[in-house]
Amino acid sequence: MKQTDVLVLGGLSGITAGISCRRHYPDKKVVLVRKEGTVLIPCGIPYIYGTVGGPQNNVIPDGLLEKNGIELVKDEAVAVDREKKVVSLQSGETISYDKLVFATGSLPMVPPIPGVNKKNVYPIKKDFGYLEEVYEEMKSVKDVVIIGGGFIGVEFADECRKGRDVNITVVEALPSCLQMAMDDEFCAEAKDKLTETGVKVMVSTRVEAILGDDTVTGVRLAGGEELKADMVILGIGAVPNTELAKKAGLELGFNNTIKVDRCMQSYTDPDVFACGDCAEKISFFTGRPVGLMLASIATSEARIAGANLYSTVHQNCGAISVFSTVVNGRAFAVAGLTERTARQCGMNIVVTTAEAPDTHPGGMPNSSLTKVKTIFAKETGVILGGAISGGRSVGEMINVLSACIMHKMTANEIVQFQMGTHPALTSSPIVYPIVNAACKAIIPIWQ
Amino acid sequence: MKQTDVLVLGGLSGITAGISCRRHYPDKKVVLVRKEGTVLIPCGIPYIYGTVGGPQNNVIPDGLLEKNGIELVKDEAVAVDREKKVVSLQSGETISYDKLVFATGSLPMVPPIPGVNKKNVYPIKKDFGYLEEVYEEMKSVKDVVIIGGGFIGVEFADECRKGRDVNITVVEALPSCLQMAMDDEFCAEAKDKLTETGVKVMVSTRVEAILGDDTVTGVRLAGGEELKADMVILGIGAVPNTELAKKAGLELGFNNTIKVDRCMQSYTDPDVFACGDCAEKISFFTGRPVGLMLASIATSEARIAGANLYSTVHQNCGAISVFSTVVNGRAFAVAGLTERTARQCGMNIVVTTAEAPDTHPGGMPNSSLTKVKTIFAKETGVILGGAISGGRSVGEMINVLSACIMHKMTANEIVQFQMGTHPALTSSPIVYPIVNAACKAIIPIWQ
Repeated sequence: MKQTDVLVLGGLSGITAGISCRRHYPDKKVVLVRKEGTVLIPCGIPYIYGTVGGPQNNVIPDGLLEKNGIELVKDEAVAVDREKKVVSLQSGETISYDKLVFATGSLPMVPPIPGVNKKNVYPIKKDFGYLEEVYEEMKSVKDVVIIGGGFIGVEFADECRKGRDVNITVVEALPSCLQMAMDDEFCAEAKDKLTETGVKVMVSTRVEAILGDDTVTGVRLAGGEELKADMVILGIGAVPNTELAKKAGLELGFNNTIKVDRCMQSYTDPDVFACGDCAEKISFFTGRPVGLMLASIATSEARIAGANLYSTVHQNCGAISVFSTVVNGRAFAVAGLTERTARQCGMNIVVTTAEAPDTHPGGMPNSSLTKVKTIFAKETGVILGGAISGGRSVGEMINVLSACIMHKMTANEIVQFQMGTHPALTSSPIVYPIVNAACKAIIPIWQ
Repeated sequence: MKQTDVLVLGGLSGITAGISCRRHYPDKKVVLVRKEGTVLIPCGIPYIYGTVGGPQNNVIPDGLLEKNGIELVKDEAVAVDREKKVVSLQSGETISYDKLVFATGSLPMVPPIPGVNKKNVYPIKKDFGYLEEVYEEMKSVKDVVIIGGGFIGVEFADECRKGRDVNITVVEALPSCLQMAMDDEFCAEAKDKLTETGVKVMVSTRVEAILGDDTVTGVRLAGGEELKADMVILGIGAVPNTELAKKAGLELGFNNTIKVDRCMQSYTDPDVFACGDCAEKISFFTGRPVGLMLASIATSEARIAGANLYSTVHQNCGAISVFSTVVNGRAFAVAGLTERTARQCGMNIVVTTAEAPDTHPGGMPNSSLTKVKTIFAKETGVILGGAISGGRSVGEMINVLSACIMHKMTANEIVQFQMGTHPALTSSPIVYPIVNAACKAIIPIWQ
């Protein structure tokens, strides 16, 4: 039997948890067990099919583990004996641990649509070999139907078209794509950008059946309409991968995630921690469980879990929900609550917007119009959320908002924000839109 | 005699102060007096000579004033009678005010070098016509010497070379360019980028004389060496434009700036406010006066001043010092203290670095390596400053650091930062360098 101090089960957040542990407890031995030899950068998966040109260009280098003194065991954990503190692997090997970290992530949701198991119908798994097969298969297809217009669906649609003569249709059950993530005006802007590329978007409709014999030939929509398809991609979301945790007797919470406290310690066993998509998330804003699965949350939790294994260092402040995407060259990002979610929570809010070119003057090369929307609590003036669309700088502007949200900054404080500006890199300081959106909120907050 | 509620004297920060006042006190009449008909975006001035192609492409639209109901008077204020609350203009007109805002900015420093008044020796003034003259003149020059290797000097050198067959030499008195602004390793990186373009950089030397009859023909350095020059640009800094304020009897403080309190109200007269380069700045970190002149500070002060004219809304938290620049396509930025300034203040600090590509995978198009350096107070773990070099995203990443600094976040808190990430827009969440630099600081802070 192999022995270790810390045993980590899983992928991306497992790496981060392992590194965090090694940093805090350099004397502890850390072993990471995962099935996959090669691990992909999860957020990069849609980009395999366009911009980055194949799965081999999207791998997380194992050097990251070696460099941090983490031993990698390529195997699958199949059972956990928490009493004996031993994990059994698929190969028959066993590993004894002192502290165990579940970072087992999530699995793609496969909807119970008739025909979902036909050939060329692909849920988006994270396995290298599987995604390579999809990549090869995509070389010869003509008609792709993507079920689900969330991030994965929209990013796949935008990437698959690149360098391919292929008809792509996104089918979304809600009235617009990305509706779970963004407010209506941003969804509309994203849809316009996506359809500009030739991708067809069908909303407020469902795929009722996947047609064909062995291999898919089309889909039938709820209204009876049929669409030709020689490939179907399922992008309707993911479910936490917590079968093993359940078998190990760990208490599961919201949506079958592992119940953890603010230290990322499992409710059930003080020697078992969890982080990432498999762990329960508590909203930063309400304290209630929320069903978010984001890299920004997973890696934050992993850093907390790794640091807390032998002594509590960090307490999780809750999931803020920060993310960004790109549709046909335009970036979209959200941090915290949207107007829709805030109103659904019954919050009394002040909503403001501001826009400005992301260079100054706007005539500089590669200038894009940045549109910012901010949501403040009316009673306190505290920022609750924001959304941005624009050019490349959106990716870090949303992190400016994330820092403001994490620190419960008020509109009054954001007005005073001292932002560095440069003609080629940012908006002019006079019109910097995050600050100007806050300026516009001051009076409505008072009134 | 013309009458107004609020009279603003000056340029960039004057516009922002005016808009802020109109937003808070929509019933108040606001008049802005400035000499220049057309006002340039100050940070864009070096870019006139390269990227943006002429001063006409770098003007602040007067529509900004109209849109906000601010009346523009193109004239020069020559005297202030604070007792009668009347300002006299060059034209002979007078304007009575209730509240007066000095936003008179700064003027380029002209060093007492023999020959500094010869033709084709140009301090960098902000006047449109003047900069147009420099632009026309530059079309025929062959040898440009830039005195001063600070931001203005380096940005001019980098821009003037674009599309021109011209020899450019930067002469800097200190041992490296940008040394007042950045730590040595960033200065060295910037110098490498600049010299790659063919610009010659001479450090630790001074221009002792400007040669030629009427028109410059060269410069003589302290060691006796002579450089050919048919144009000399002076980029050695600026002095606050406070002659009029002094004549008006306002108390001046550090470096002849107008003494103001945290509300931006002048020490001398409760009806007179000041903001921007002409107003005294207090360090966010030490509470002492500091000689910073930055757009990030000026516009923040202007927003505060405008809001406080009739009732105190905001209190200035002090100057953080946040800025960014671009040298030959690579961006450099600093927020807060550098390692050098922190050590000069005798602070006990922990310094860490981290680097990562600004896309993930790093093989995405337009990927740059981002290098981050962070400075924490050892006793408290509070972030005091940071510097970044990299690609375009540096412009907003430095604002993430600015938000962290403004809120006195500790390394422990930054470790938990939830940053949105996207393959095309940011580093991978595993290696996001601001967070990883904070992670590396935790143990050294404890020890």
